[in-house]
Amino acid sequence: MIYDAPVKDMMFLVDEWLGMDKINAVPGHEDLDSDVLQFILEEAGKFCSNELLPINREGDEHGVIFDNGVVRTPPGFKEAYDALVAGGWTGIDADPEYGGQGLPKLVQYLIDEMLGACNLAFKLYAELSHAAYHLLANSASEELRKRFIPKMVAGTWSGTMCLSEPHCGSDLSLIKSRAKLNDDGTYQVTGAKIFVTSGDHDLTENIIHLVLARIAGAPAGTRGISLFAVPKILLNDDGSLGAENRVVTASIEHKMGIRGSATCALNFDQATGYLIGEENRGLSTMFRMMNMERITIGIQGLGLAEIAYQNARHYALERTQGKAPAPRPDDRKESDPIIFHPEVQRMLLSIRSQVEGARAMAVFACHHVDLMGKSADEGVRNHAADTVALFTPIIKSFLSDLGVSSTQIAQQVFGGHGYVREHGMEQLFRDSRITTIYEGTNEIQALDLVSRKLTGRVGECADRLFQSWETLFEEHRDSIDSVEPAETALIRLRDATEWIRKKLEADEGLALGAAKNYQRLFSLTAVACFWVDIVVSIREKSGTFYATKRKTARFYMQHVLPETEALHKVITTGSDSLADFSVEDFSH
Amino acid sequence: MIYDAPVKDMMFLVDEWLGMDKINAVPGHEDLDSDVLQFILEEAGKFCSNELLPINREGDEHGVIFDNGVVRTPPGFKEAYDALVAGGWTGIDADPEYGGQGLPKLVQYLIDEMLGACNLAFKLYAELSHAAYHLLANSASEELRKRFIPKMVAGTWSGTMCLSEPHCGSDLSLIKSRAKLNDDGTYQVTGAKIFVTSGDHDLTENIIHLVLARIAGAPAGTRGISLFAVPKILLNDDGSLGAENRVVTASIEHKMGIRGSATCALNFDQATGYLIGEENRGLSTMFRMMNMERITIGIQGLGLAEIAYQNARHYALERTQGKAPAPRPDDRKESDPIIFHPEVQRMLLSIRSQVEGARAMAVFACHHVDLMGKSADEGVRNHAADTVALFTPIIKSFLSDLGVSSTQIAQQVFGGHGYVREHGMEQLFRDSRITTIYEGTNEIQALDLVSRKLTGRVGECADRLFQSWETLFEEHRDSIDSVEPAETALIRLRDATEWIRKKLEADEGLALGAAKNYQRLFSLTAVACFWVDIVVSIREKSGTFYATKRKTARFYMQHVLPETEALHKVITTGSDSLADFSVEDFSH
Repeated sequence: MIYDAPVKDMMFLVDEWLGMDKINAVPGHEDLDSDVLQFILEEAGKFCSNELLPINREGDEHGVIFDNGVVRTPPGFKEAYDALVAGGWTGIDADPEYGGQGLPKLVQYLIDEMLGACNLAFKLYAELSHAAYHLLANSASEELRKRFIPKMVAGTWSGTMCLSEPHCGSDLSLIKSRAKLNDDGTYQVTGAKIFVTSGDHDLTENIIHLVLARIAGAPAGTRGISLFAVPKILLNDDGSLGAENRVVTASIEHKMGIRGSATCALNFDQATGYLIGEENRGLSTMFRMMNMERITIGIQGLGLAEIAYQNARHYALERTQGKAPAPRPDDRKESDPIIFHPEVQRMLLSIRSQVEGARAMAVFACHHVDLMGKSADEGVRNHAADTVALFTPIIKSFLSDLGVSSTQIAQQVFGGHGYVREHGMEQLFRDSRITTIYEGTNEIQALDLVSRKLTGRVGECADRLFQSWETLFEEHRDSIDSVEPAETALIRLRDATEWIRKKLEADEGLALGAAKNYQRLFSLTAVACFWVDIVVSIREKSGTFYATKRKTARFYMQHVLPETEALHKVITTGSDSLADFSVEDFSH
Repeated sequence: MIYDAPVKDMMFLVDEWLGMDKINAVPGHEDLDSDVLQFILEEAGKFCSNELLPINREGDEHGVIFDNGVVRTPPGFKEAYDALVAGGWTGIDADPEYGGQGLPKLVQYLIDEMLGACNLAFKLYAELSHAAYHLLANSASEELRKRFIPKMVAGTWSGTMCLSEPHCGSDLSLIKSRAKLNDDGTYQVTGAKIFVTSGDHDLTENIIHLVLARIAGAPAGTRGISLFAVPKILLNDDGSLGAENRVVTASIEHKMGIRGSATCALNFDQATGYLIGEENRGLSTMFRMMNMERITIGIQGLGLAEIAYQNARHYALERTQGKAPAPRPDDRKESDPIIFHPEVQRMLLSIRSQVEGARAMAVFACHHVDLMGKSADEGVRNHAADTVALFTPIIKSFLSDLGVSSTQIAQQVFGGHGYVREHGMEQLFRDSRITTIYEGTNEIQALDLVSRKLTGRVGECADRLFQSWETLFEEHRDSIDSVEPAETALIRLRDATEWIRKKLEADEGLALGAAKNYQRLFSLTAVACFWVDIVVSIREKSGTFYATKRKTARFYMQHVLPETEALHKVITTGSDSLADFSVEDFSH
């Protein structure tokens, strides 16, 4: 399996399309220049290709071992983790105050793409720590921040999110885990948590679990849930490691993919925990972290689509089979490389045109994460927060769906050789498959988009975005041929948006039944608009790279975007046939 | 995991929609009545649910073991295979002359759906024998038929197809295996074959390999390939088992799914083989068998979609999570079964509406397989053969794609619980994934449809079929509301067909680049037409079953069929952006 980090495309998007001036306008990132950024990305790419990709298949074959209550990661994971720590890759966007490198989150996300591409199972050990770091940095008391964060940024400790319980995953209002205040201000946390990513492992000295539980007497539902930091190993007063806390790994899951990642069931039995933030406000704190994590998960899908594309392209250039249609490259040969078959080119381009467009959308959204957190201007921060709120379910669902569809198409290019484990293509699919499920299934993302992001402040933000695209189209309609299809798609999206808004008021169930189709219509249209913006930005440029960008944009418009026509129709005319069915109809 | 064989729907399609009179009009099947058919299907369903489903997950977890040159099937497979043999399930449609039951192939296909649903890995051991039986019965000399066939029909011997070699799969013109005539009229067969399903195992006393190889001096390419029967164990003159033949199992593949099925690499080293049919005509003989097998593989996908649907529906009725939109079933409860969420209903119906429509299409095509082989009227036989030729790539690709998409949707309904192996949902996907690849990838099917099935006699057959649907629409336009969308789709299909036919003459590459999209447009439209035909056939019927059929048809028209609009557009307007790309563009 090969991987060549797409640094060129990333640099094009950040340096040329977005512009380094936009990055430098964010306080704290004034000095980042494009040479340094390129160096960082190239080094990250090398680390991923050289250290993580080679242990990816062995990690899948070997899996995580659970033996006598101890979790052991696959061969090579510990060495790779130590190299990750030594390279400073655990603190890319972390605050220098805690030992981080203070780089933009955008840079973190770009590197996340590479990590996810080369070894998703491995990446998750660092990823959840990173998410936990942000939560603690934003919401924990100063004392907790000082005790926990520097070790997490350094990577010597890691973190988890403990949300799901056997009877609840998507619906956290049903959480039963409970907490009781001790005399010293700490809590006793008790409950059974499942699906805890990196819940136990042998890579770090300690693990800080972030656990949702109810304090005795708390209200029912989502408003009675608090958040606790529960270390695997308790700390002595001087910060050194003390006794084991009362957290037991009950089992690990045997999964379809990411088999090198330890997904644990943890039992907390009067474990000592520290309240984070206010009582009963834990869910909203956790959701801020989950939202950032949702973007990262979309990026994972993007990375897997990219590596799948690279390997399918490589195979298609090498593997000869059948004669291509005329004019054949060499008529004397028995067979041609399969890339000469138009169907194979179509398959490859369907991945590529979506990956490059989706990466632009991700760069846009991730830059707004930086603006949201750090801009000096409150108006900019608010607008950025709304933009991020709008794009979070889009990035999570569209990019992870793209990972799943792309790894499948790439596997198909390999034919029977894609079905055997040897080439690694089937693993890419199995690993990518989790991304459409965890941190809220893509259907949950679609419901979030439809029921919470189309009205109020975020809804207004969507309208402004639509208007900005219309302005763009207006300006370039005569010179850029991608404008026409994108404009048509945008008209459909606006119409479907109005349909959803009306139904939300009149008959919510109908709007919710259209959620996933609407999410896809929004995503495909948005990517088309970003493609137009890219083509506009390079309209004066010549050379192969830019010519290929223009061709790829055109392919997207002709081959991918037409689905929006069908989606619009299903959304606006399909609700009555769905409403025809009652639950009873499913019993026969 | 649950499975309730869809006997009711099968009986509806065969007995009511197609009509037993059509079955009875085929020579040899005059006496089959609907009570007997229903009894057979129910017994087959019980066998699959009770004997095969319970060993499906263990077969996946344990896999096939290759130890010291010996292949061992998973626990329970031998016992289940003995029960399959004892029940007479290996000779359903085989000729009574050889000990078969002489039932229609249509019945075989219906039972194939159940077998594929409950344990695809297991099914393959009998399936390839069954295909080999048909090939030998049609093409082998009387002597070979007498020696081999009765044991294969009884199931005490099995069969394989040995086609692929390391350097060739889709393109069999590149085959290198060779054969040399012995003095006694037998041949010495030498070569390396890969991807041999059931190439070795411990279920039967002997295995008859059907091997493609070149006789010394044969022409290059596809016209120099002959077909040989090569037994694993040689026969003595009295037909008893003698010495081992020179066939060695080199290895077994480690695969994404169907892990209980032995996919072998076999080395033939001057193995004794018997020529089947004429020299150098082996490929066309093998292709007749492969075409029947392609239909079976589509049916496998259909079965997997059905069992995925049943389990997702079951889970959705049981699992409570979140509050459904108003009116909620019971406002006092904390959460509702997830089937009350419109999005979940939509997911389930997208499977169901395609499965039921696709099953009708399969029944139609499989009935034509019977007509093609047995009708007393030559005109009927020829028309049936053309119909089967047209529908073979459609059934193979659309139904296997449906298996893949449906198992994925059903897995998604389970959320995180679908990703862990425990519930078996992820196995359904992994198993189904091979069906879009083996016996010619679905892209190869699409190329077959576009380049060989739209012109000449089969092309005329397609036009007649389109006309028959138009006549149906004409008659019922005013009374059946599904006519309008189906008619619109058919207009698009006819237009795209003309586009393809023109491009085939003018610029073949453009037609081939539209192949997969065209295959899907054809399939979705055909299913819509079959749905209309069903709705017409039950227009006077009342009761829940028929009412649900009508609602399901309507859902299909509103939610599934609109994709044809996008496909038509991509086919007819997308060829230039694909043609923009040259192979060089893929090197950067």
